[in-house]
Amino acid sequence: MSMLKVISTYEFEKLIENIHEIECEFVDILDSYGRILDEDIYSPVNIPGFKRSAVDGYAVMSRDTYLCSETMPGVFNLKEEIEIGKKPNEDLSGLECSYIPTGGMLPNGADSVVMIEDTEVIGNEIFVNKSVSKNENVVSEDEDISKDDKIFSKGDLMLSTHMPVLISLGVKVVKVKRQIKIGVISTGDELIDIKSDIEVPKIKDSNGPFLAFAAREDRCISKHYGIVKDDEEILTSTVKKALAENDMVFLSGGSSAGNKDFTEKIISELGELMFHGLSIKPGKPTLMGRCSGNKYIIGFPGHPLACMIVYKFIISKLINHLYGKKENITYQVLEFGENYHKSKGREEYLAIRIEDNKAYPIHAKSSAMSVMIKCDGILKIDRDIEGYQKGDKVNVMR
Amino acid sequence: MSMLKVISTYEFEKLIENIHEIECEFVDILDSYGRILDEDIYSPVNIPGFKRSAVDGYAVMSRDTYLCSETMPGVFNLKEEIEIGKKPNEDLSGLECSYIPTGGMLPNGADSVVMIEDTEVIGNEIFVNKSVSKNENVVSEDEDISKDDKIFSKGDLMLSTHMPVLISLGVKVVKVKRQIKIGVISTGDELIDIKSDIEVPKIKDSNGPFLAFAAREDRCISKHYGIVKDDEEILTSTVKKALAENDMVFLSGGSSAGNKDFTEKIISELGELMFHGLSIKPGKPTLMGRCSGNKYIIGFPGHPLACMIVYKFIISKLINHLYGKKENITYQVLEFGENYHKSKGREEYLAIRIEDNKAYPIHAKSSAMSVMIKCDGILKIDRDIEGYQKGDKVNVMR
Repeated sequence: MSMLKVISTYEFEKLIENIHEIECEFVDILDSYGRILDEDIYSPVNIPGFKRSAVDGYAVMSRDTYLCSETMPGVFNLKEEIEIGKKPNEDLSGLECSYIPTGGMLPNGADSVVMIEDTEVIGNEIFVNKSVSKNENVVSEDEDISKDDKIFSKGDLMLSTHMPVLISLGVKVVKVKRQIKIGVISTGDELIDIKSDIEVPKIKDSNGPFLAFAAREDRCISKHYGIVKDDEEILTSTVKKALAENDMVFLSGGSSAGNKDFTEKIISELGELMFHGLSIKPGKPTLMGRCSGNKYIIGFPGHPLACMIVYKFIISKLINHLYGKKENITYQVLEFGENYHKSKGREEYLAIRIEDNKAYPIHAKSSAMSVMIKCDGILKIDRDIEGYQKGDKVNVMR
Repeated sequence: MSMLKVISTYEFEKLIENIHEIECEFVDILDSYGRILDEDIYSPVNIPGFKRSAVDGYAVMSRDTYLCSETMPGVFNLKEEIEIGKKPNEDLSGLECSYIPTGGMLPNGADSVVMIEDTEVIGNEIFVNKSVSKNENVVSEDEDISKDDKIFSKGDLMLSTHMPVLISLGVKVVKVKRQIKIGVISTGDELIDIKSDIEVPKIKDSNGPFLAFAAREDRCISKHYGIVKDDEEILTSTVKKALAENDMVFLSGGSSAGNKDFTEKIISELGELMFHGLSIKPGKPTLMGRCSGNKYIIGFPGHPLACMIVYKFIISKLINHLYGKKENITYQVLEFGENYHKSKGREEYLAIRIEDNKAYPIHAKSSAMSVMIKCDGILKIDRDIEGYQKGDKVNVMR
């Protein structure tokens, strides 16, 4: 029906490079939580933004304290008691001072603070027993952040620890990527719905809900359109509806062989088939098509473990690309715990169990659910590598 | 006003051990995403749940193939073609076979599958050229998961990769912890709202929104009641309202000294003060009180970095305890990049920047926002340790 086109993950990465990033939108700062920035953010202000005292004491002009000592104290007139969070009412002139608490704002005419233990109060006069230098005990107005410092970068994901910074800068609106909308359709006559009772040998549709939740974890909006039987007319109209309502459609294919041809046919009818296989194991029966309006259809393999691996390590690259975001996989270097042979020519994603800081492959065959429970990470083995020996250092994706 | 009570983190952990976990509720499986299990889950079924073929071929009784070879093939009557996802219609008797695709269900009367390449079709008869042993090319009904295997444990957080397993087991309703409700109140005359313009030397309320979002990240429901000025009557009535509507109230204190006495007084009026200081740095001015109905008030320090550290490394222990959940901190062993001295007697939480796989302390003083941006992790230094030397191995929390 179409030219055989099985591509490598390298070719996949090249292919998605040409796809346009998703558009932006402007949101209120409190709505930016969990969103991806579409702009670099530079500080519009200095933080704290004013000179403040690092101690409890008296704000003075340092030159007035020159040669002050216990035997020869300087005598200063007290102008006022400055309060936290309020501007000083009085400016200082020569030999004047104001009481200032830690964090208080330095008054005009002062450039330093004498610590309270180096002073004595006598009536309305303050005796200063120690000289201070310029800026002594003073926190500068840009001590924390300087105006125009780069604070966040395009592609950063906003989490709870980032919010206080954005708020402190006085930012009110931020430019973020709008959320990608994904429609998930489960296909296959052998699938039954979550709500049904198990009916051997039919199998529960677990891929559809997985894809819908996984897309949500990656900051997309997802909708599951349920299970559609292998009926060309119904499936085509459901895909059309989902395409109209979303940016991407995920077809979670059944595991039967006929099923793949079927989704391939529908993708070809509604758009242009970009590839119909990935040279990876597991996950070969993965399809992708381009439709008008920068919309895409992805056909996932039916085997649950393959579906999970293809989503997490391949299709998430497309989502990150659309968001202009760096990958969110963490790597851990571990010692490989046994010998593992792999044939050349296909990239392999091996489920890993970690024990005593060593990585052991989980021997799976057709199992999927038990692997998902036991799996601590995935080891990607490049196509030209023929396996690993016990004791090799490997880089496990978690 | 109350007996001085500054406790260690060890005493804090002992204190919360006596607090009852939050109640459970029963939810539909699709609503269990992101929730914490309140039960161990054992598999109620075998997965796949039926004997199926690992190859395309013919289902037979193995004893009928005894001594079959190319020169002496066995001759079998073809009963039917079994389809994926459907039960076989026919049972097999002696010298009968059925066509079976990979994944198809084995019919009664068969215990093995002959691969298609080891057979020949002649009319309605199948010539079998090779003997098979019992269970050959057959995937057993509990190959993936056995009935009564422990699948998930109380305290597990349900994420996208767990959902397919729950679904496949046919689980429809799960027992989860109900979500903890947290009311956040910001206090302090020096605070101004996110929506206001910066008004030096007032500071933006960043702790309130941080705590509300951080609690959401930890699977709680949070509501921010805004900024309440240092007015006893208004603050008391706001705390009462928040206590009535939530399980816990977070008071995000201002940084002024008077502020702390104020929240301490209100906690004492509405309940029993459990402690009014933690012997940690930063984060000492942390308060906790117990109110009727297993409800708690936490007073956080006003310094944003201290507030973040107290939430992430202290109060999250209380939330995990209420949920019966293990801690969600990941640790990374790194080489310490310089010499760092700390005084004995207080546990210290040091902000860390990671560079070239080495951990460097971020020298902060009163800075907070710049630390939050640069911080890659936190190093907890126990109270009796006097610092670390360049080259020491340290365990950084991320």
